[in-house]
Amino acid sequence: MSSAEAASVVNKNVHPFDKAQLDTLLTSRFFFAPAFEIYGGVAGLYDYGPPGSALQANILDVWRKHFIIEENMLEVDTTIMTPSAVFETSGHVAKFADWMVKDLVTGEVLRADHLVEAVLEARLKGDKEARGVAEEAAVDEKDAKKKKKKVKSTAVKLDDAVVNVYNTTLAQIDNYTGEELGAIIREHEIKNPDTNNAVSEPVQFNLMFDSMIGPTGKLKGYLRPETAQGHFVNFNRLLGFNNGRLPFASAQIGRSFRNEISPRAGLLRVREFTMAEIEHFVDPENKKHTRFDEIKDIKPKLLPKDVQMQGRTDLVEMTIGEAVEEKIIDNETLGYFVGRIHMFLLQIGIDPERLRFRQHMPNEMAHYAADCWDAEIQSSYGWIECVGCADRSAYDLSVHSKRTGQALVASQALAEPIVTERAVAEYNKKTFGKTFGKDMPAILEVLNKYDDEELMKLKNEIEAGDATVALADGRTFTLNKDLVTVERKTFKQSVREFTPNVIEPSFGIGRILYSLLEHSYWRREQDVARGVLSFPTCVAPTKVLLVPISANTAFLPLIKEISAKLRAAGISARVDDSSATIGKRYSRNDELGTPYGITIDFASVQKNTVTLRERDTTDQRIGRVDEVISVVADLVAGNISWPAACTKLPAYDGVQAVD
Amino acid sequence: MSSAEAASVVNKNVHPFDKAQLDTLLTSRFFFAPAFEIYGGVAGLYDYGPPGSALQANILDVWRKHFIIEENMLEVDTTIMTPSAVFETSGHVAKFADWMVKDLVTGEVLRADHLVEAVLEARLKGDKEARGVAEEAAVDEKDAKKKKKKVKSTAVKLDDAVVNVYNTTLAQIDNYTGEELGAIIREHEIKNPDTNNAVSEPVQFNLMFDSMIGPTGKLKGYLRPETAQGHFVNFNRLLGFNNGRLPFASAQIGRSFRNEISPRAGLLRVREFTMAEIEHFVDPENKKHTRFDEIKDIKPKLLPKDVQMQGRTDLVEMTIGEAVEEKIIDNETLGYFVGRIHMFLLQIGIDPERLRFRQHMPNEMAHYAADCWDAEIQSSYGWIECVGCADRSAYDLSVHSKRTGQALVASQALAEPIVTERAVAEYNKKTFGKTFGKDMPAILEVLNKYDDEELMKLKNEIEAGDATVALADGRTFTLNKDLVTVERKTFKQSVREFTPNVIEPSFGIGRILYSLLEHSYWRREQDVARGVLSFPTCVAPTKVLLVPISANTAFLPLIKEISAKLRAAGISARVDDSSATIGKRYSRNDELGTPYGITIDFASVQKNTVTLRERDTTDQRIGRVDEVISVVADLVAGNISWPAACTKLPAYDGVQAVD
Repeated sequence: MSSAEAASVVNKNVHPFDKAQLDTLLTSRFFFAPAFEIYGGVAGLYDYGPPGSALQANILDVWRKHFIIEENMLEVDTTIMTPSAVFETSGHVAKFADWMVKDLVTGEVLRADHLVEAVLEARLKGDKEARGVAEEAAVDEKDAKKKKKKVKSTAVKLDDAVVNVYNTTLAQIDNYTGEELGAIIREHEIKNPDTNNAVSEPVQFNLMFDSMIGPTGKLKGYLRPETAQGHFVNFNRLLGFNNGRLPFASAQIGRSFRNEISPRAGLLRVREFTMAEIEHFVDPENKKHTRFDEIKDIKPKLLPKDVQMQGRTDLVEMTIGEAVEEKIIDNETLGYFVGRIHMFLLQIGIDPERLRFRQHMPNEMAHYAADCWDAEIQSSYGWIECVGCADRSAYDLSVHSKRTGQALVASQALAEPIVTERAVAEYNKKTFGKTFGKDMPAILEVLNKYDDEELMKLKNEIEAGDATVALADGRTFTLNKDLVTVERKTFKQSVREFTPNVIEPSFGIGRILYSLLEHSYWRREQDVARGVLSFPTCVAPTKVLLVPISANTAFLPLIKEISAKLRAAGISARVDDSSATIGKRYSRNDELGTPYGITIDFASVQKNTVTLRERDTTDQRIGRVDEVISVVADLVAGNISWPAACTKLPAYDGVQAVD
Repeated sequence: MSSAEAASVVNKNVHPFDKAQLDTLLTSRFFFAPAFEIYGGVAGLYDYGPPGSALQANILDVWRKHFIIEENMLEVDTTIMTPSAVFETSGHVAKFADWMVKDLVTGEVLRADHLVEAVLEARLKGDKEARGVAEEAAVDEKDAKKKKKKVKSTAVKLDDAVVNVYNTTLAQIDNYTGEELGAIIREHEIKNPDTNNAVSEPVQFNLMFDSMIGPTGKLKGYLRPETAQGHFVNFNRLLGFNNGRLPFASAQIGRSFRNEISPRAGLLRVREFTMAEIEHFVDPENKKHTRFDEIKDIKPKLLPKDVQMQGRTDLVEMTIGEAVEEKIIDNETLGYFVGRIHMFLLQIGIDPERLRFRQHMPNEMAHYAADCWDAEIQSSYGWIECVGCADRSAYDLSVHSKRTGQALVASQALAEPIVTERAVAEYNKKTFGKTFGKDMPAILEVLNKYDDEELMKLKNEIEAGDATVALADGRTFTLNKDLVTVERKTFKQSVREFTPNVIEPSFGIGRILYSLLEHSYWRREQDVARGVLSFPTCVAPTKVLLVPISANTAFLPLIKEISAKLRAAGISARVDDSSATIGKRYSRNDELGTPYGITIDFASVQKNTVTLRERDTTDQRIGRVDEVISVVADLVAGNISWPAACTKLPAYDGVQAVD
């Protein structure tokens, strides 16, 4: 093994994952922190500091290039504040809600389903303890994922029948109405486990923040819980911008809000978050994708609904091409996006071993959706939905069109006009009126409902001279060719009009960002206290750290020169000229995930050489300033890897440092 | 004049500005449009379509490079939803409000100051008409700027005394309380001009959207009306991230909200908008700036407060260096940002002739502000504030610190410790208690208030044996050296602690974007119907349009090749292969502001040449595909200008087209 190859091998799994240490790192380095901390904070609101903001901006930059620019999507930027009518149409006013109960003594508010789940699971756990049965790991995972109230179990054995009822209840916990949850709470005497007080009947709590637009107090508005409606209401303008052609996609990056009842899972369940959403509008009769071939051989880990409905979670290994072929994924366009999402997540540094695509089961999916796959990423909170990818059929455009009376359709000029022939009846109004008088309208009403077959029968009867028409009251009237003639005519349709279907990939950026932090985090073999965040260079908040070996002013001109050259090359760099030791400064930047460090010492001033350090290996190379900058530029652009860089710059033997 | 020089001379002012035509262009090309238009729209809410989103993204990209990256600012991303306490502290809950009145019959809501202004100005105008005096243009400008209700004047002569009262009232219109506005409305019998109905007493309307955070109904929140508080509450973390050093700046780009009473001025007065804000934290004792020299020779048009207070609006011509020297601009750091803002606005394409920096007059400025300059841009709405640049002193950090009890200070290690000497009294508690008993606390209270001079006098008296202390009740007590000794001691202070001052440049991105649209818009000499948006390349939504001369499939491979090469060079390009004529397609892209067009014809397929068209001159050059791409890359990167490009590519004589 050459030294260059050795340089890229680092065992990142020597030490077990330490969530508490990571949390400390993230707060102390200000990746993010509770918002309004000096005011005591507000649950579910977080601020991103400089490294968190830069990490987010870089993830979004990769997203924009990977999706919007690569596919010429139409980017939009629509308002967060939305009048009530829009969310009445979309169904959010009626249904975007959770059921909550109040502690009857303290007034504490709890999510009803989470309460039932936590208490029944604790009782089942206590039952298992009493029976001496080992608890299943799966329950813990689910518990961690939802970050419910932690309820201590006590070893009490339950009747077998009760165990069955509890298990059945838990399996359906996501499907109960408020009334049903109330009945369950009463039946099983569920109380607030923190206080042992009884709780109220469940009350629906809408998860949208509301406000009043303008001073009249009459125009209610909501903060959007997703950016999607902003695309749909602009559909006609977008279609026009695309010269009337399908398919096309709009895309939007922006803030959305959910007024969670009691958020408790860090960045994974927050009240305000950044989303990136794509609405791909497609002809319902042609969901093929022209670039499907480019992704068809990708093999993401799939968890189809059939597997889940058998109560299993084993992942299926097959290419997207095979999955679409076998109708496991509904269509090519949906499959294409599953592939593109997979590529994107790997590019920013998500561990493919902890990424799966889980298909929605029929009971999870909205009635209108054709198919839906969530990209779930595994972290210490369990498997968490980070990207949804749904085929929403024609639902959204249809409901907005119905409510507003505006047509939201696309049309297709048919290459070959559709030619149809059908029978058409023509009435002689004059003779008809004379013959039938006040019965004319009733007779015409019956005739107008004739289908093609009935009209042809009428034509034949008229020609044979024995045509009659019967009314609902039993009376019949005779018809002849002076009253009505039936002819076959040819019709030509050259344009087809239809409501497009929508394929919607929807990204929760904060959830992806947090998962990436966990996947990037490890600790050095020699020093368990030293955390490192091994971001891929493309998303690293800062690419290069400039470290003068001391505060000597002799280094200033060179620092200025190198900074200017890196800036000109579009590489984000920071200088750390603090008085901490070199080792401390590098440690700090390992925690910030800075992939490269350039050290400036007296040799730099004398010989114009600097050393280049790589974060993961801590390997150091040496070269002239311009050589090193050129290698760094290639590394940051992704043109070369670290082992390749090592073939260009010799290893630093530590001799050159002069001080 | 060479053809290359001629190519860059285009008379853009042949036709007068046509606001209605520009408005039609902006909506039909979907730069922006009223939000929720299919639902009838909501005043003050706008959505950006693809070209508007891209223009905004490019303006923000230039902003980020010009400010954040160039100066290593600390970017943050903080929440929009903010608990009430924060805005109680900042003063927004009490003061961020306008006065409104209601039409007593229709219930229509009007801004009280705008109503008074509109009605009195209409009466003054009617008076002038009656007197046969020409109206001043200035009034019209002001009217346009505020987009008040348009009130028709009728020629009615007023008493001279009434004219004086109206003029005095109008001059102070921004300073009245609600009660005063109510009195003015009653005194001058001001009614709703649309209905001639009386209006209610003014009621204060807070301009922040409010909502409830969480389900308890107890935690009120507001949508931020600016991003600034998010910086201030994180000050300690930011200072820590910057290794405790000053000066540093934080920066944030994000959405803010103002619940305007009746917004009527397009993108200039909206209820939801994108801001970019910088909070530069600086030592109050040192507001010099290390890079001041780089901007000191810039000569922006200045409108200082002294000029305005003489009722004049003539602009002052002087360099920023001179303005700071003469204390017209308060300090170097404030001057530095005025210079940097000026550079930024010119870079994105704002016309320097329609840009001025207006200083706030004392009555406009918050009591705590040291100095404030608004960058105002002139458009068809008048001179509009687009960037504020204020020295907010220590106000923000002080009030948050006071409310939360958290220290928000910086400290400076003093190079030379400050050595002070002062007298210190030491009491012998034992003898003191024995001698004075229950009078001891009262005596000590008096002694503890002694200043240095009084202590030295006491020392001398004790040494002389005639020391006494007098209480407030007139009693005196004798002191001696067994009870108290006074010594001079030396104190060394090596750290200075202080509350940083804040210099705040705050950018309204939508206002800048709209002003830029007006400044970029012109119409071709030959064709008044053809609008062109001459954006600088750096902000143009799309840089290159690819136009195949027809829908012939022979062009597809070349289109794909050129698209891929442009994408690899990071240049945003779009293909227009619609069936419209070449001329129509270029026209459409002139309206979108696309600076370059590449035409692909049969010569392209046969000889690998394409033509390159420049938007403003409509000049066309020809070259091999790779040559043209390389020239376009240089043009887009800003390395060369169009005349320089013309020296590299020969003029296209129109002969090569084969069809």
